[in-house]
Amino acid sequence: MGILESIRGPKDLDRLTSQELTDLADEIRRFLIRNVAQTGGHLGPNLGVVELTLALHRVFDSPRDSIIFDTGHQSYVHKLITGRQDFSSLRQQGGLSGYPSRAESEHDIVESSHASSSLSWADGISKAHKLTGQGDRHTVVVVGDGALTGGMAWEALNNIAADKDRRIVIVVNDNGRSYAPTVGGFADYLASLRPAIDAVRAAPAYEGTLAFWKKRLQEGGPVGRFTYRGLHAAKKGVKDWWAPQGMFEDLGLKYLGPVDGHDERALENALTAAKHFAGPVIVHAMTEKGRGYAPARADEADQFHAVGVIDPLTGVPLTSGGAASWTSVFAEEIAAIADERPDVVGITGAMLIPVGLHKFAERHPDRVFDVGIAEQHAMTSAAGMAFGGLHPVVAVYSTFLNRAYDQLLMDVALHKAGVTIVLDRAGVTGPDGASHHGQWDMALVQNVPGLHLAAPRDATRLREELREAIAISDAPTVVRFSKGSVGPETEALERLADGVDVLRRTGTERGKDGDVLLVAVGAMSDLALDVAERLDHQGISSTVVDPRWVLPVPKSVIRLAAQHRIVVCLEDGVRAGGVGSRIRQEMRAVGVDTALNEVGLPVEFLDHGTRSEVLARVGLTAQQITHDIVAQVLGMKVPFARPLPGQSAPRTGSLPKL
Amino acid sequence: MGILESIRGPKDLDRLTSQELTDLADEIRRFLIRNVAQTGGHLGPNLGVVELTLALHRVFDSPRDSIIFDTGHQSYVHKLITGRQDFSSLRQQGGLSGYPSRAESEHDIVESSHASSSLSWADGISKAHKLTGQGDRHTVVVVGDGALTGGMAWEALNNIAADKDRRIVIVVNDNGRSYAPTVGGFADYLASLRPAIDAVRAAPAYEGTLAFWKKRLQEGGPVGRFTYRGLHAAKKGVKDWWAPQGMFEDLGLKYLGPVDGHDERALENALTAAKHFAGPVIVHAMTEKGRGYAPARADEADQFHAVGVIDPLTGVPLTSGGAASWTSVFAEEIAAIADERPDVVGITGAMLIPVGLHKFAERHPDRVFDVGIAEQHAMTSAAGMAFGGLHPVVAVYSTFLNRAYDQLLMDVALHKAGVTIVLDRAGVTGPDGASHHGQWDMALVQNVPGLHLAAPRDATRLREELREAIAISDAPTVVRFSKGSVGPETEALERLADGVDVLRRTGTERGKDGDVLLVAVGAMSDLALDVAERLDHQGISSTVVDPRWVLPVPKSVIRLAAQHRIVVCLEDGVRAGGVGSRIRQEMRAVGVDTALNEVGLPVEFLDHGTRSEVLARVGLTAQQITHDIVAQVLGMKVPFARPLPGQSAPRTGSLPKL
Repeated sequence: MGILESIRGPKDLDRLTSQELTDLADEIRRFLIRNVAQTGGHLGPNLGVVELTLALHRVFDSPRDSIIFDTGHQSYVHKLITGRQDFSSLRQQGGLSGYPSRAESEHDIVESSHASSSLSWADGISKAHKLTGQGDRHTVVVVGDGALTGGMAWEALNNIAADKDRRIVIVVNDNGRSYAPTVGGFADYLASLRPAIDAVRAAPAYEGTLAFWKKRLQEGGPVGRFTYRGLHAAKKGVKDWWAPQGMFEDLGLKYLGPVDGHDERALENALTAAKHFAGPVIVHAMTEKGRGYAPARADEADQFHAVGVIDPLTGVPLTSGGAASWTSVFAEEIAAIADERPDVVGITGAMLIPVGLHKFAERHPDRVFDVGIAEQHAMTSAAGMAFGGLHPVVAVYSTFLNRAYDQLLMDVALHKAGVTIVLDRAGVTGPDGASHHGQWDMALVQNVPGLHLAAPRDATRLREELREAIAISDAPTVVRFSKGSVGPETEALERLADGVDVLRRTGTERGKDGDVLLVAVGAMSDLALDVAERLDHQGISSTVVDPRWVLPVPKSVIRLAAQHRIVVCLEDGVRAGGVGSRIRQEMRAVGVDTALNEVGLPVEFLDHGTRSEVLARVGLTAQQITHDIVAQVLGMKVPFARPLPGQSAPRTGSLPKL
Repeated sequence: MGILESIRGPKDLDRLTSQELTDLADEIRRFLIRNVAQTGGHLGPNLGVVELTLALHRVFDSPRDSIIFDTGHQSYVHKLITGRQDFSSLRQQGGLSGYPSRAESEHDIVESSHASSSLSWADGISKAHKLTGQGDRHTVVVVGDGALTGGMAWEALNNIAADKDRRIVIVVNDNGRSYAPTVGGFADYLASLRPAIDAVRAAPAYEGTLAFWKKRLQEGGPVGRFTYRGLHAAKKGVKDWWAPQGMFEDLGLKYLGPVDGHDERALENALTAAKHFAGPVIVHAMTEKGRGYAPARADEADQFHAVGVIDPLTGVPLTSGGAASWTSVFAEEIAAIADERPDVVGITGAMLIPVGLHKFAERHPDRVFDVGIAEQHAMTSAAGMAFGGLHPVVAVYSTFLNRAYDQLLMDVALHKAGVTIVLDRAGVTGPDGASHHGQWDMALVQNVPGLHLAAPRDATRLREELREAIAISDAPTVVRFSKGSVGPETEALERLADGVDVLRRTGTERGKDGDVLLVAVGAMSDLALDVAERLDHQGISSTVVDPRWVLPVPKSVIRLAAQHRIVVCLEDGVRAGGVGSRIRQEMRAVGVDTALNEVGLPVEFLDHGTRSEVLARVGLTAQQITHDIVAQVLGMKVPFARPLPGQSAPRTGSLPKL
């Protein structure tokens, strides 16, 4: 039995010797590599915080003291220490969350994995402790150097500094490779313990693959180099601030460090000193992402920030790529557009490769900007660039658009700036859980004046709609698509004058009214076609359309709605105030009162699981949708659709035999 | 003819002598006091930037160089210099906007007056200039010390510092009263020009009222003192950062200052030096809000930040208060609740008095927190406080909630934190124009899981619903109300079991179906009652209800909807995805297909004007709404409402004679 198995809770760490702690760290790394290789997950960040997490739990008294991870993807080691060692179904339905989860443990506090929020949580928690006479409880934050580029972090530091009578320990988990020379008391520790670092570094058996990875990345060419340079530049400004003589001490916050983040004893010393300092204090820990795992260390792009299923020995992905991803289609097309139009520029919030701007950046490195984890700035600086004659493309995960709503509204839309926003990971995403589903975007942008919203159904439409978006120069445009592989191509039977694609028609000819109009938003077209086929078998006629642009609402969709008995809008977003809701509103405005069912996501946070599991959980299956439509058609006693002027009366009583 | 009248554009400043510039500054101050006293507006901030604006336009070449004000309320002097000297209808429909406006002038750039965005605009504009070979054009920002507390500002500075090959001049308009000792080259200027400051100070004839104001504020007691202390604390952290040896130079940004912001010549020198520095540079200008106007200078609370119509000599408001404001009702009630419940705390984003937390703060100064212009932090730190056992009340203007949507969703709602958000200035506000209308809030929060939303119709309901909100401890609660005076009390005929108030019923008895169900959201109840009365005269029966809590949608509203032929929902917010839209969605979910008209604001930015002018512009008048309802009733050929099980069939053909 290893040491890890004997750890049932943080208290069990207390009895371990220094050697046992070193052995435990090694065991945890092997555990993480073995397990995460099988399930996928945030491997690199967690390999970087093994000693740090052990030291935190030896020095502080969780849950009496609060430990907050920013972001939560670095909490795997914390989970192992707080009684959660079954990683077999990590990030899978019913399995452990990939982030802290209050339902899992009293040691978990902040579940959301939107960056830069931890210092605000800490400010709030410590204010509460102070007011309720529990000022001796500590609030501990582990915040990455990347998260410090987010504006919220600065707002919080400003407030933490305004009241120094609180026990807040801010551990800056600095996994960069360059940093200011060490000064102060902890520099001595750092120097004296250098041999220990080398020992850990030599320990793992994975060094053999290092050459393989170096070669692979060098083949990658400018991408890897740009990436590193880009991230480096984005972080550099911040880094200067918290160099020992810098920002923190200007703010009047006590600063300890830098300390070697892989020397558990040095960390304990630093954290103990911080614990006994009666006020907010920074502990600056230097860590290595992917520590102890050669394939990760050798990966210059992101050091295995998040992986799928991999070979644990080599780190090579085991799931074959198969179909192209939505991201890769976008990456190719935006690079091609950039070749053609010198005014097009790209903006990313610290996610160059994940959002697919890397090919663009390879070819035009001066026209792609990594602004840090700073979506607000991304959006407003884009408005500024548009004012200056450029056409910016802001590429961001759907869920992070929430951070820039005000800027989209007040800076981009109010100023009629031609800014294209590309939302990746829109809709149900899967294993990352509640804070990463892209379920809010379409409802969110419904009330942005002048905004155009496209949801491509396949690769061809993504290319096409992206180009249409970038052609619009006087309003915000949004193109949103899913995570993962792009589905099969679906050619339209017909493209209507306003750009709406008719994908399928049964039982009726053009212009005649049918039973059901299925409005398929983006990737929901496959589901809609499946539903239409099932309706055929029930003798219910249907028309399937892909509006392509869901904002502004195409007039032909309204006209078709008037020609059917029921409208069903399928969308991969929250129902309340979503696309279906808006279509129905536009229908009502012109007196079309055909019953419209919004089929989409409920107003709920959705736990992790595969995309199809989550969709099934909320009833977004062809079977369920068909069932509901059939039941509704059967229940129709009066006609829903009224004739438009010049049309024949709607059919009544002609219900299909089931 | 004065000098001001001879200034048709910035170029006309070039020919003025030093003495003429001094005279012009004096003339502008008199102009501002005389005019703004008649219309109301942002007096204090503009009196503070007279010399600064003159110097900016003498040194830089607008519009080739871009001048951006953060926030735009300090652009009155800029307007006077750029050809806009008719202030007679400032902030009134058809008159000058109170902020920069692209429609007014090519010299205006950023219209939105949400703080802290200017540096991002400047980053974007300068990137565009650099990429398009116009790197010699300057981008100049005038940013207040308050705006620097917002996270966006830090995100932008981090990016500005990452590429120093751009001509960005950041003028920090520091109107604080305490600052670090002056050092560096400009300290000499400051010292040598001190007599000039004294001369200006002595010039105005308003000193006589100083004693009056001092006394008045002293009578105010702890409020004034708390306010000053609160603002001071919130700004202090920031102030430490940009002290000469502080943050800016850590970031590697050139720093010039501090410079006397009322010495036009010193400012010109500083700005000229900045102009010739080939990279981003900070000019730190010390200004006095309300400069040259004794009543403003003597007002410790906010130095006449924004005023209504006042006596120009004494600064005393001329519009009699009349009815109590929504804010004052809230201020009283929250203070009373705070007395009863020690766990209740208040949070404001640099607007203690405007949002009505000052009475609370007077009585419990340790339980009200001013976090700076930092809505993101306000929201997330509230989640932290709730985790720590408190019940936070975040009081903010409706339009600024947009800045904290992600935090409301991911920090408050996902974590089921009992946080109450009080939205003042909700709905159409009036003279501040597009960026200040509170038209987005109700649509925005529709998709926040678990959120409860109340819109009180009068003072009694505000008190009542605020208490109900604070009683909920496991979900976000929002209470939103209008700007200005609270209307007359409207007692309910009946309160239904789920809290819905029936305000009026005509032509039908309880339980019987009528023609029109009017759902009145909050302050729209007066309008709804007016419409109902007009419908009476047309022989159309109606029921008027105030749901009180519009989220979750009360079941009785759905039941009543099924009992009427038309539902009309009146809301003071954007229609798309608003309250009416949500009610209709909940109706559809249970098979109630009564036609529902959403009567609210269009998805448009609304120019300034009085509240009633703006409402009339978008058709929100009793006359228009009644007209539309009558037309719809007349047009009904088939029944909209179908009977619920156990009810009689709906009436058809029994249309009233008009």
